[in-house]
Amino acid sequence: MTSRADAARLDAADPLGSFRDRFAIPDPGLIYMDGNSLGRPPRLALERLKAAAHEEWGEGLVRSWDHWVDVPVATGDLLGTELLGARPGEVLLSDQTSVNLFKLASAALAARPGRPVVVTDSTNFPSDRYVLEGVAGEMRVVEADTIEGPQPGDVAATLDTRVALVSLSHVGYKSGAIADMAAVTRLAHDAGALVLWDLSHAAGIVPIDLAGTGADLAVGCTYKYLNGGPGAPAFLYVRHDLQAEMHQPIRGWFGHADMFAFTDRYDAAPGIRRFATGTPPMLAMVAAAAGIETSAEAGIDAIRAKSMSLTALLVELFDERLAPIGFELGTPRVAEQRGGHVSVRHPEAAAICERLIADHHVVPDFRPPDTVRLGPAPLYTSHVDVWDAVDRIVAAASG
Amino acid sequence: MTSRADAARLDAADPLGSFRDRFAIPDPGLIYMDGNSLGRPPRLALERLKAAAHEEWGEGLVRSWDHWVDVPVATGDLLGTELLGARPGEVLLSDQTSVNLFKLASAALAARPGRPVVVTDSTNFPSDRYVLEGVAGEMRVVEADTIEGPQPGDVAATLDTRVALVSLSHVGYKSGAIADMAAVTRLAHDAGALVLWDLSHAAGIVPIDLAGTGADLAVGCTYKYLNGGPGAPAFLYVRHDLQAEMHQPIRGWFGHADMFAFTDRYDAAPGIRRFATGTPPMLAMVAAAAGIETSAEAGIDAIRAKSMSLTALLVELFDERLAPIGFELGTPRVAEQRGGHVSVRHPEAAAICERLIADHHVVPDFRPPDTVRLGPAPLYTSHVDVWDAVDRIVAAASG
Repeated sequence: MTSRADAARLDAADPLGSFRDRFAIPDPGLIYMDGNSLGRPPRLALERLKAAAHEEWGEGLVRSWDHWVDVPVATGDLLGTELLGARPGEVLLSDQTSVNLFKLASAALAARPGRPVVVTDSTNFPSDRYVLEGVAGEMRVVEADTIEGPQPGDVAATLDTRVALVSLSHVGYKSGAIADMAAVTRLAHDAGALVLWDLSHAAGIVPIDLAGTGADLAVGCTYKYLNGGPGAPAFLYVRHDLQAEMHQPIRGWFGHADMFAFTDRYDAAPGIRRFATGTPPMLAMVAAAAGIETSAEAGIDAIRAKSMSLTALLVELFDERLAPIGFELGTPRVAEQRGGHVSVRHPEAAAICERLIADHHVVPDFRPPDTVRLGPAPLYTSHVDVWDAVDRIVAAASG
Repeated sequence: MTSRADAARLDAADPLGSFRDRFAIPDPGLIYMDGNSLGRPPRLALERLKAAAHEEWGEGLVRSWDHWVDVPVATGDLLGTELLGARPGEVLLSDQTSVNLFKLASAALAARPGRPVVVTDSTNFPSDRYVLEGVAGEMRVVEADTIEGPQPGDVAATLDTRVALVSLSHVGYKSGAIADMAAVTRLAHDAGALVLWDLSHAAGIVPIDLAGTGADLAVGCTYKYLNGGPGAPAFLYVRHDLQAEMHQPIRGWFGHADMFAFTDRYDAAPGIRRFATGTPPMLAMVAAAAGIETSAEAGIDAIRAKSMSLTALLVELFDERLAPIGFELGTPRVAEQRGGHVSVRHPEAAAICERLIADHHVVPDFRPPDTVRLGPAPLYTSHVDVWDAVDRIVAAASG
């Protein structure tokens, strides 16, 4: 059996151990296993937010737009180059994930006239499916295994000359399964389609190689592993050589080539800024930028290494202590095939989650009908936290 | 000639004089005449923002969504009933103004099949025109007087059975002219069209009667006179009896009837929430809510009365001191026909604005090619501020 001392030994050798101090943790006794839903506040975000409110807004007033106006592109560059494998000028902080998905999916369909079909899979995040169904002429939904996620071969079987776009989540929101970005992108391109990745559960937790895989389009949120704050601005990615031919449908002044000229005619900005629309919410954006900076400083390889160590421990403890009391694993067993969270399933999952929060000082995440998502965030969660969380799940499951 | 002492007498009798203390004003020597672009921070917004970041995000973590999820509708209700003349359940805080305009204009066109035309006017905010052009099958642009704004008779001349939507700004962004909401709404309805008002320059500064005029749709921002913060979340309004037949195109989980059920199928929420899409940016939203609360407490009638007194003083001082040195008035002369700002025009407007900021401690707003917008915000701007601002404009204009 894996002991708490074993977990403590892993923590003692953890190169990211000191990063916990970068976060505001007013309740050190709480085991927070929902960093995959809303990350904790980085201290840097709280500092920047205060400065943005008091100094930039309060003192700078409207004059602060001189520099605020550059934040969405500059922060996108940092996120893109440090954490997503994109090149400068390919990522923009903008709107919310679903709005960005709408923009890029609409632009993709417009760029492939005569092809009305959008392909997605049955395990994709429901909001993504709603958005895609809203813009597609016709949907094809790949039936994916609920644990292993969509497989390239299954996607390939749906592709033909009527498909404009394949849109999948890179890491499944429920199972945590990683979809094969390189293989699916290649298959889509071979069929003349574009590919659009939702990176919400991948950004800041797994290395992503948008440039290397040749991915066309991507969106994602910054409030999970990037710790950008509740409902923080989302991001979008458009590969550089595609930008000029992509026309997103929500034209607004922040996407205009010369927004302060107030011309009658809409001229889309060259580059990634053409995918912007309205005035960006700067208070939320400076917090998101601080979260991204904090993750970039830790480095995605170190984050991934620790994340795999944490989820490996979780799976080990699952086998030892949770499987015997009726839990099933809802996540791929092979560490390389999963993202940052581990799902465990139990018929009484809802009640167990309620008891964990109310009585055991553990915050997990319930996803209906039977899934408990456990998302140990590498920047502030320790191996001992994971050990204790499983220990308390055992207690909560016994009523 | 109107003296500074005359202005001081008006301030002494100002029932809103004490509201200046509700705002963080770290630079009392600065005369801020751009509250119509970005309002100053209410102290309540700074307090709420701190609490939202440290307590709601930092301590409550994901559990805070239990109450955050209600904020967009609750804040919309406060804004709608106190400041816009709407009924409960008709206003939602959501996204940015241009995104909301896209949603509602798209929904309006879908609700009027066979009618491809959208009517707007030549003085409408450029971003509104870009958005509308992006969704309309065909645009008709009423040529409006640059000072008096679009007139009902001119709008009437464009209306026929091919028009789905008339979309105007209630208060012109440049001239400040108020469009006749009741008359234009009636004309649009008589022609079988819907009407969509942009209230960005009207909300929180002029009384609006959405219910009384029978307006169908509206959008607007909260960062001007509502002092909600830079790029604060915008709002949208849909008249209650229209909501069920309006289908906005950006479907997302926050607009779903049962968003946390994660069902495969999109079922639009009943009521105003169906116009929401993604996760709302809560840090920005609590600041906006505090701005709205502060304005609601002051009361729109008191705000309007002081605003008219401030702009009347501005026009008086324009006649006495600015007209003689080459300025022209870019705003209606009749107080009832203008919103909260006064535009003055001068061939050297750009240089004058630069000098005002750099050398005279006055922040005005330049709009190309020749307009200086002066927006005295009634909650924190005094009549003496207005007198001093004009005095410094005279100095800046002399080089």
